[in-house]
Amino acid sequence: MSAQTATLKPTTGNNARRDFYERIGALSMAPLWESLHQLVPPTPAPKYVPAHWSYDAVRPFLMESGSLITAKEAVRRVLILENPAMRGSACCTPTLYAGLQLILPGEIAPSHRHTQSALRFIVEGEGAYTAVDGERTIMHEGDFVITPTWTWHDHGNDSSQPMVWLDGLDIPLVAMFNAGFAENYGADEQPVTQPEGYSDARFAHGLLPVDWKASRQTSPIFNYPYARTREALERLDKDGPPDACHGHKLRYVNPANGGAPIATMGTFMQLLPKGFASAPYRSTDGTVFSVVEGAGESTIGDTTIRWKKRDHFVVPSWARVTHRADSEAVLFSFSDRPVQERLDLWREDRGGK
Amino acid sequence: MSAQTATLKPTTGNNARRDFYERIGALSMAPLWESLHQLVPPTPAPKYVPAHWSYDAVRPFLMESGSLITAKEAVRRVLILENPAMRGSACCTPTLYAGLQLILPGEIAPSHRHTQSALRFIVEGEGAYTAVDGERTIMHEGDFVITPTWTWHDHGNDSSQPMVWLDGLDIPLVAMFNAGFAENYGADEQPVTQPEGYSDARFAHGLLPVDWKASRQTSPIFNYPYARTREALERLDKDGPPDACHGHKLRYVNPANGGAPIATMGTFMQLLPKGFASAPYRSTDGTVFSVVEGAGESTIGDTTIRWKKRDHFVVPSWARVTHRADSEAVLFSFSDRPVQERLDLWREDRGGK
Amino acid sequence: MSAQTATLKPTTGNNARRDFYERIGALSMAPLWESLHQLVPPTPAPKYVPAHWSYDAVRPFLMESGSLITAKEAVRRVLILENPAMRGSACCTPTLYAGLQLILPGEIAPSHRHTQSALRFIVEGEGAYTAVDGERTIMHEGDFVITPTWTWHDHGNDSSQPMVWLDGLDIPLVAMFNAGFAENYGADEQPVTQPEGYSDARFAHGLLPVDWKASRQTSPIFNYPYARTREALERLDKDGPPDACHGHKLRYVNPANGGAPIATMGTFMQLLPKGFASAPYRSTDGTVFSVVEGAGESTIGDTTIRWKKRDHFVVPSWARVTHRADSEAVLFSFSDRPVQERLDLWREDRGGK
Amino acid sequence: MSAQTATLKPTTGNNARRDFYERIGALSMAPLWESLHQLVPPTPAPKYVPAHWSYDAVRPFLMESGSLITAKEAVRRVLILENPAMRGSACCTPTLYAGLQLILPGEIAPSHRHTQSALRFIVEGEGAYTAVDGERTIMHEGDFVITPTWTWHDHGNDSSQPMVWLDGLDIPLVAMFNAGFAENYGADEQPVTQPEGYSDARFAHGLLPVDWKASRQTSPIFNYPYARTREALERLDKDGPPDACHGHKLRYVNPANGGAPIATMGTFMQLLPKGFASAPYRSTDGTVFSVVEGAGESTIGDTTIRWKKRDHFVVPSWARVTHRADSEAVLFSFSDRPVQERLDLWREDRGGK
Repeated sequence: MSAQTATLKPTTGNNARRDFYERIGALSMAPLWESLHQLVPPTPAPKYVPAHWSYDAVRPFLMESGSLITAKEAVRRVLILENPAMRGSACCTPTLYAGLQLILPGEIAPSHRHTQSALRFIVEGEGAYTAVDGERTIMHEGDFVITPTWTWHDHGNDSSQPMVWLDGLDIPLVAMFNAGFAENYGADEQPVTQPEGYSDARFAHGLLPVDWKASRQTSPIFNYPYARTREALERLDKDGPPDACHGHKLRYVNPANGGAPIATMGTFMQLLPKGFASAPYRSTDGTVFSVVEGAGESTIGDTTIRWKKRDHFVVPSWARVTHRADSEAVLFSFSDRPVQERLDLWREDRGGK
Repeated sequence: MSAQTATLKPTTGNNARRDFYERIGALSMAPLWESLHQLVPPTPAPKYVPAHWSYDAVRPFLMESGSLITAKEAVRRVLILENPAMRGSACCTPTLYAGLQLILPGEIAPSHRHTQSALRFIVEGEGAYTAVDGERTIMHEGDFVITPTWTWHDHGNDSSQPMVWLDGLDIPLVAMFNAGFAENYGADEQPVTQPEGYSDARFAHGLLPVDWKASRQTSPIFNYPYARTREALERLDKDGPPDACHGHKLRYVNPANGGAPIATMGTFMQLLPKGFASAPYRSTDGTVFSVVEGAGESTIGDTTIRWKKRDHFVVPSWARVTHRADSEAVLFSFSDRPVQERLDLWREDRGGK
Repeated sequence: MSAQTATLKPTTGNNARRDFYERIGALSMAPLWESLHQLVPPTPAPKYVPAHWSYDAVRPFLMESGSLITAKEAVRRVLILENPAMRGSACCTPTLYAGLQLILPGEIAPSHRHTQSALRFIVEGEGAYTAVDGERTIMHEGDFVITPTWTWHDHGNDSSQPMVWLDGLDIPLVAMFNAGFAENYGADEQPVTQPEGYSDARFAHGLLPVDWKASRQTSPIFNYPYARTREALERLDKDGPPDACHGHKLRYVNPANGGAPIATMGTFMQLLPKGFASAPYRSTDGTVFSVVEGAGESTIGDTTIRWKKRDHFVVPSWARVTHRADSEAVLFSFSDRPVQERLDLWREDRGGK
Repeated sequence: MSAQTATLKPTTGNNARRDFYERIGALSMAPLWESLHQLVPPTPAPKYVPAHWSYDAVRPFLMESGSLITAKEAVRRVLILENPAMRGSACCTPTLYAGLQLILPGEIAPSHRHTQSALRFIVEGEGAYTAVDGERTIMHEGDFVITPTWTWHDHGNDSSQPMVWLDGLDIPLVAMFNAGFAENYGADEQPVTQPEGYSDARFAHGLLPVDWKASRQTSPIFNYPYARTREALERLDKDGPPDACHGHKLRYVNPANGGAPIATMGTFMQLLPKGFASAPYRSTDGTVFSVVEGAGESTIGDTTIRWKKRDHFVVPSWARVTHRADSEAVLFSFSDRPVQERLDLWREDRGGK
């Protein structure tokens, strides 16, 4: 049962039909003709809404959570960004979970693994690490880090400042498939068996180990550092005019197959030049944004959101959106686009309102 | 919001925490640590249940629906098989819709198209047709017919008897992605531009047209006739012993890519020899069954269902199932397995209870 | 060294250059500028020619070979169809080998395997078998049988008549890569472990075994019977007009991946209606034809060949060809097209002369 | 006709057979049984040999060629590295061409395109450019640059020193398929429409343009700079012990599909630590090496070659090779391995002699 279809009720029909519906209802049957239009709508009619989480408002609560519960007790000390129209569901969109995770100096978020895939996008701080499959990576603001499906992962903060990152997971998607499995490692930290930078050297330089074969679809690169991404965006901005809808927009890639680093979630980074105002755009993939640099505003359907560095907001499926950048702005985003594309479901509309 | 995650409630916490939850709630945030275990469960905990629709019980209602509403008024005269734990959702499983469609002699179900993919599995009757992309196919009991995503399709019954088929669609899946589009053709029937058998000749004989390129993932074969499937099953049964869990089980295939005929739904046919009792089995794909021949019983978790020809039943994700065949039995089934497999999510467990 | 490049000679240059060429020649070097045009030609300039093997002329020699050497002594009693411009090379085209194999009643062609892939197209006779991977298939005229790379295979004739088939192999291609390996089985026949029809039931009915995973690219179907192919061609002919260049032309397909049944060789069957005269056509894949039914003529560049049932002929790469059918004709053919397509090398030209 | 099969002659047979062979020879036929063993050998028996081109010996001739012919007259001023056993063929291996190209300050190698794919590996010099599809890249020693199939490309040297690079092409492979096409641009240089670094920014930073779709298999990155490659190799060397056969070996990758940057040629870079002596190794892909750094020796079958920086050598298919590095050494190499792998033909043998 999805939010889209949860409230189907016969809306027409005379007494004979109502009586019939009642009798078949006893057999767990229902008349399609009363709900066909809702079940097979002419265009997407999402039941969730645009929303905005200002970091100014959120950060004090994040810090307060640090004194309310330890990272260890919490396992993951995260404030979930819940879609206002889906309260109680832990969903930011019907397929995606988003949350802000805090890890304080000296803390450890203990090792576990699950079939849900996770992305981490670093919002504030420097120097905490994520460990995946025996290798640690030190995280910096703007880095995009993945903890792929069914890999042991833990986090720790050896720096002297708190660190906050955006967690993006496919929890609702995996829940719909009832295909979720999870295990605790049994110790706080997995043993470190590879030096830092081990994966980066092997997979992120335009080469792959000669005899390496991918054992899963997720990227063998698990930290895409912001320094590298920012350099690419700068070059794009120097090279020519931005795309009318997107500014300069790139998608992260798994170099072993050309697909998304995470099979279930697409991840994107875009630069909006100062003063850029985008043409209207909509697509079927509801998208969560994290503001990396700059300030501006986005109009999503009838809702206008003013955002700045470290803010988060969500654009629902098929909602028409325009962006305007007051200063040069950089936006990270993620959505379920790769899944929709593989199922021949994804559509976009670059036309005006 | 999926059924799996809809009821998350903080279950622990002292007053300070409750107060904190309330304050962050005002910002559409929630504490992950209160629901982590539910969101990332150790093993799948589906919120839907096994169910059984006896054709003896269902058929009178189907026939009654024939006098209650015309096929044209109904657009599709279908009784939805709703999961008893998901009433009002039009779902048989969290990702799949199932229904029984009736079309009476002389009736037409008018032409439309939608991004949702549909399968038709013929339960009773002979001689009605499905038209797809300008070609009609006459349907017989046990035939498996597809109407691929975004193709015009209509149905008509030129025979002298009612026809009933199982409709299987990915409606809940597409709803979760908010990627549904639909259009009416504007006339009851699309023009027929190809002779019957046109696609079968080109695609179902171990050959493909020399310069044909697939424009979508769905199979170019749109009727897999039962006569051909039955012949294959008979040979398997003659050749050797059945698989301990499945009997003799085949999956339908798109010869243009080796995948499922429909990208979002796997379809299967299996023969259980007379007296066969299967070993316990479970997998993460919830599955809808249609009994084609024979009689027997299936135990799904703690529920035992006695079935016979034309009955339907559903096995939830990760529910352990055993089958027993009183007479030689043939079962058609469908599930979301191909999607789970492409996302590295599918698991099975062939071990005992 | 290929035939295409074997005769490069400096054709210009003064004495100083000639002297230079001689001095660098001592170091196994040569000047590119003297041969660039030949090495990188504006359009393909094949060094092989059209050729025709009339079955009337060939058959007596085939039968004579039956008394000259036993199948067992010969291992394979085959008369190679050698391109007249490549005598001594055992090549019909630069990448393909073709030969006619005779097996007499009671004979066995002993079991071996090799990395070269082979196709058998049955020209005359009924009732001999090919065994592959523990399964035998009885062969009939027009059947297309494969013995995939590195599979044990043997042939035997339990019928009362001689049998002749066309052997097509990728011998020159594999030789160029120096990637050929071969082994004898050590006994005349491999043990038969599967009943006849085992593979056909599992793979040729629009279904695949539910948990089967392909371990190689070659088709799991190893006999594509002519009866099935002929039925498809008849339907095509009934359904509409032929393609201007090809008549009604289909390619054999591996249902597990949509590609060619043999990774290195494409195989085709086409029907030319009585009186059909094709438009000019050329493509980069040199092609070997076997006439299955009917009579007609083909003009290949400046050469015209009159052919009838059981004749063979070869069309070189990029040679313009037209066909004319005196009676309804059916042509089997094979080429290296799938390899060229995978390397982005294949081109065709449907325009006139 | 390939070098492997060019000299097939009946080696046995009595008079009756000889007479028969003569009579069928008149019809362009030959007896398979006389050559089967040669055509289908038990293991590869390449007809080409190891060879070594010392840069000390080659460089004077390269420079002399600079005064013998202009780059423009030559179109490409290249000394072909011909396999000593395939003189006159312009082949370094049966599938690969290799040559050393010189471009002097102020010169231009005029724009053309061809279906043959080319790689450039920079041996000496700094600052010349290659232009592909409207973009120039400045080349430095150790850079690996591609000019993909059917793309306009030209070269020019705006620096003050001569530049030398290794050209690797699939000329013999394309010749065997008779699928070669070529065109001159009509002007010396194609117009430059993109700034330098355009492709690098878009494709070489772990991201791809959001809506970019590959139109061919070749990599969208056309310069893989040595600085980046060297950094990866250094990290590998720091991280752990070398592979027994290969040292630290990486393959270049097309980030859009995980395959080789050029569909027909694999390219590799390996670091041999000082004093490293490799275990014996052989594989079916004949390989051309270019020494980037260091000195050492390789034993190929019975031949031992002492090499140093800028030398070139070739290892034939299935020849057993061991390397020994006197100083830390870096080797670039290329072969047809990706083609063999796609055709299920590639094999290796890591076992000792």
